[in-house]
Amino acid sequence: MSIEPVLIAGEWRAADSTGTFQADNPSTKEALPATYPVSSWADCEAMLAAAESAFAEMQSMPGERIAEFLEAMANRIEARADDLVKMAHAETALPESPRLADVELPRTTGQLRQAAAAARSGNWKQPVVDSANDIRSCYGPLGPVCVFGPNNFPFAFGSASGGDFAAAIAAGNPVIAKANSSHPGTTKIFAECALDAAGETNMPSAIVQMVYRTSHAVGEQLVTDERVGATGYTGSRGAGLALKQAADNAGKPIYLELSSVNPVVFLPGSLEEKGAELATEFSGSCLMGTGQFCTNPGMVLVLKNDAADAFVDSVVQQFSEAQSGTLLSSAVEKSLHRSHETLKEAGAEVLCGTGDGNGTGYCAANTILRVSGAAFIRDPETMQTEAFGNSSLIVEAADLDEAAAVLATLEGNLTGCIYSATDGSDDAAYDKLAPILRQKVGRLLNDKMPTGVAVSPAMNHGGPYPATGHPGFTAVGIPGAMLRFGMLQCFDAVRPHRLPEILRDDYEGPTQRLIDGSWQ
Amino acid sequence: MSIEPVLIAGEWRAADSTGTFQADNPSTKEALPATYPVSSWADCEAMLAAAESAFAEMQSMPGERIAEFLEAMANRIEARADDLVKMAHAETALPESPRLADVELPRTTGQLRQAAAAARSGNWKQPVVDSANDIRSCYGPLGPVCVFGPNNFPFAFGSASGGDFAAAIAAGNPVIAKANSSHPGTTKIFAECALDAAGETNMPSAIVQMVYRTSHAVGEQLVTDERVGATGYTGSRGAGLALKQAADNAGKPIYLELSSVNPVVFLPGSLEEKGAELATEFSGSCLMGTGQFCTNPGMVLVLKNDAADAFVDSVVQQFSEAQSGTLLSSAVEKSLHRSHETLKEAGAEVLCGTGDGNGTGYCAANTILRVSGAAFIRDPETMQTEAFGNSSLIVEAADLDEAAAVLATLEGNLTGCIYSATDGSDDAAYDKLAPILRQKVGRLLNDKMPTGVAVSPAMNHGGPYPATGHPGFTAVGIPGAMLRFGMLQCFDAVRPHRLPEILRDDYEGPTQRLIDGSWQ
Repeated sequence: MSIEPVLIAGEWRAADSTGTFQADNPSTKEALPATYPVSSWADCEAMLAAAESAFAEMQSMPGERIAEFLEAMANRIEARADDLVKMAHAETALPESPRLADVELPRTTGQLRQAAAAARSGNWKQPVVDSANDIRSCYGPLGPVCVFGPNNFPFAFGSASGGDFAAAIAAGNPVIAKANSSHPGTTKIFAECALDAAGETNMPSAIVQMVYRTSHAVGEQLVTDERVGATGYTGSRGAGLALKQAADNAGKPIYLELSSVNPVVFLPGSLEEKGAELATEFSGSCLMGTGQFCTNPGMVLVLKNDAADAFVDSVVQQFSEAQSGTLLSSAVEKSLHRSHETLKEAGAEVLCGTGDGNGTGYCAANTILRVSGAAFIRDPETMQTEAFGNSSLIVEAADLDEAAAVLATLEGNLTGCIYSATDGSDDAAYDKLAPILRQKVGRLLNDKMPTGVAVSPAMNHGGPYPATGHPGFTAVGIPGAMLRFGMLQCFDAVRPHRLPEILRDDYEGPTQRLIDGSWQ
Repeated sequence: MSIEPVLIAGEWRAADSTGTFQADNPSTKEALPATYPVSSWADCEAMLAAAESAFAEMQSMPGERIAEFLEAMANRIEARADDLVKMAHAETALPESPRLADVELPRTTGQLRQAAAAARSGNWKQPVVDSANDIRSCYGPLGPVCVFGPNNFPFAFGSASGGDFAAAIAAGNPVIAKANSSHPGTTKIFAECALDAAGETNMPSAIVQMVYRTSHAVGEQLVTDERVGATGYTGSRGAGLALKQAADNAGKPIYLELSSVNPVVFLPGSLEEKGAELATEFSGSCLMGTGQFCTNPGMVLVLKNDAADAFVDSVVQQFSEAQSGTLLSSAVEKSLHRSHETLKEAGAEVLCGTGDGNGTGYCAANTILRVSGAAFIRDPETMQTEAFGNSSLIVEAADLDEAAAVLATLEGNLTGCIYSATDGSDDAAYDKLAPILRQKVGRLLNDKMPTGVAVSPAMNHGGPYPATGHPGFTAVGIPGAMLRFGMLQCFDAVRPHRLPEILRDDYEGPTQRLIDGSWQ
């Protein structure tokens, strides 16, 4: 049995391993051939030492150099697109098309190129100059960044390819990637692309390093190490909170994307107006990709009346008739069943599903649960149990006051959405509910399902805890996402030739600067 | 015995009290006449309920309204300047002039007016519009903010008057102020000004609420409450870390300013060039205000040679000859003696001081300790014990490599400074040390003592942990400091009339907006 090597300090080398694992194919539930090591602390120590050296080189590097690396990486990814798509399909069962090849891969290279443009322009640094006091400041790189990627976007959120990766590198930091254990082979190909791109662009070879898995204890030690600048984590709430606690205690920034039920409110007028259409829109959105999106609409709030009943009936019919898709892993399948049990025990009624699915591989039946607003309010914490997958909980409020009370009990979410009638009949209800929902979510939508997350400078893929660890930052969107991996650096009476170029009086680059109160 | 009332929900009322305390006059060590209550959780619960209602009113309030409140508050403070100066002088022994009346008070009202201008213009919100995707985002208010103020700036960092207060209100949040127990009377006057200003400008009367003291347990419960948006804390490391742990576990943002030794490096050429002058500059800076600044230069790094010896001799002479000032409280006096003991036990040599001072009231002798670079590196954590007050530790490195190694062991600090010769002879040494120091501090200075903290948009009064809790934020400087009390709010396909004015297509206000990639 040969064991796959890890990427440390620019070399593919045998891991100092405390065990091995294999990924499996979710469509067949069979193990894939490759064997991957579980890395010990010795591997992490070696990565940290190499990352520290790489950071020393990168610290004063012009953004142009970083941009060249990110663009070379995007090119390498495109050159290996077939390998990546085949491997990711085998490891995740996500469709090759439309999805991996034609949606997620271009999104991933697009993110890298947007990050390159931001590194080149320096606009993320937000330079401010106070000439009278000779005080200048801008954001600068923070130090080596650890990235833990999720299972559901092997490319676009991958630890050696995705949004956190691109943002961390573009801000000038080397990355230590921990592959998601469900797609180690995919992550390995990205790490190969990164090493090739580093060679091509003369970057420190430890700009990107990668291991496949560690124990929880080693992972916690990693994110607290004094050489680490920050950590980006997307994944399960349990593992994420353990890392958060470790990082918090060490005073190390950690940005998390943990869980979100993404409440969608259908106000009465909207259901009167086009309830059947909305039932189809919701069902399609919730079942797309077998519901495995961080922004999947996992909770629906309606005001109980005939139109709402008809809407629910239609949703249940569509969920019942649709074939259940393949889930990403046995862990996702187990977790989904467990969440359903939790919700049922708390009093949610099964309208359809919760049992085995009728699809291939790991799967669960398309599920709709229902609970009254009053019951939701009695145990809001349990009722907000995320059921990650092809599942949603419908909350039926008796009236608008109860709907408001339901929203007031919500934890932080990535998104929240309100559908309302076009004739203005829902406006008073909107005005009552929207301010409550606004404070609970990162992104507020009208009349639109939340699943799409555009890579836009105006995007906020974030939200209050426990959706993320801090309500002020987004994980998607350049340059916003880069601020997570920067520190605010002030220069007070520093001699002109020692200043970063972007803060000098004679700077002539493209970045907008706030100089003595006016933007220039 | 009458007990001072607390300000809850717009009323001065008797506290639900679990005890009482008195402040004392640090110059005389005698108790001041007023008696203040220690508030129970019931007081906090009442404040939270009122703050939640106040926030609901403020959430959609135009910045103009907030600005009017802040300006009215500044005016009220000026009208009561004499009361404030007298009370603060009695409670802190800080000089009336030059300091309280003519430095700190104008700084405080200036901050409030800068915050008002930022609230009015909305520039802190950083609006971004993506027209093609109809996605828009900006920072918005977060919810009620708890402010714990420090002992050393009763006005400018006061919990009901200072930087955190101004930033939190300007961002649209009500404030729950916990007075510093060493100047409760001063804080009470500010709370009176705030209540008057709220009445004058028709703001919710709970926009500012205030208690004097709580138990640690009640304080921790307060910062984790679901109704709290965030907390700002400036004070001792121990109490701050306890609050941080509580807030972190609850996923509540907390911004802390804890401790900092503010390393100052004198490179050899600078001491050759003007060592005597620098000894005077350093001594004056370190003894000013009896050293009780967060940015006091508490650590000096020199390369051992004749010029460094002469510099140290001159500093010791000046420290020995200067009268020791009055410290803010018995707690500061005790803590300073305890820090000296810790440093001495770890091997620091006493060059002067560490005993009782020759001034009035609470005081300690002006103190200079010395340690070799090698000894520092052996136990860097202990050697970085903050000795808050008229004290500094001189670290003598054998050579440049050892100096670099000393800097590499530093924790996060608010400031770091390097003095170098004007003839270029120190440039190689600067280039070696500055990149190390840069990552350890929020503000890097050249040839300038760090004690002054200009209220400038370019200021960073922040730095890596444990100087603060997050390296991306500043506590001083408008609008930067406001971002701590905002959340990123995205609006996706939200109907135009429901958008915040600043994100609408027809917005015509003064704020710079990033629209479709270009600033307008």
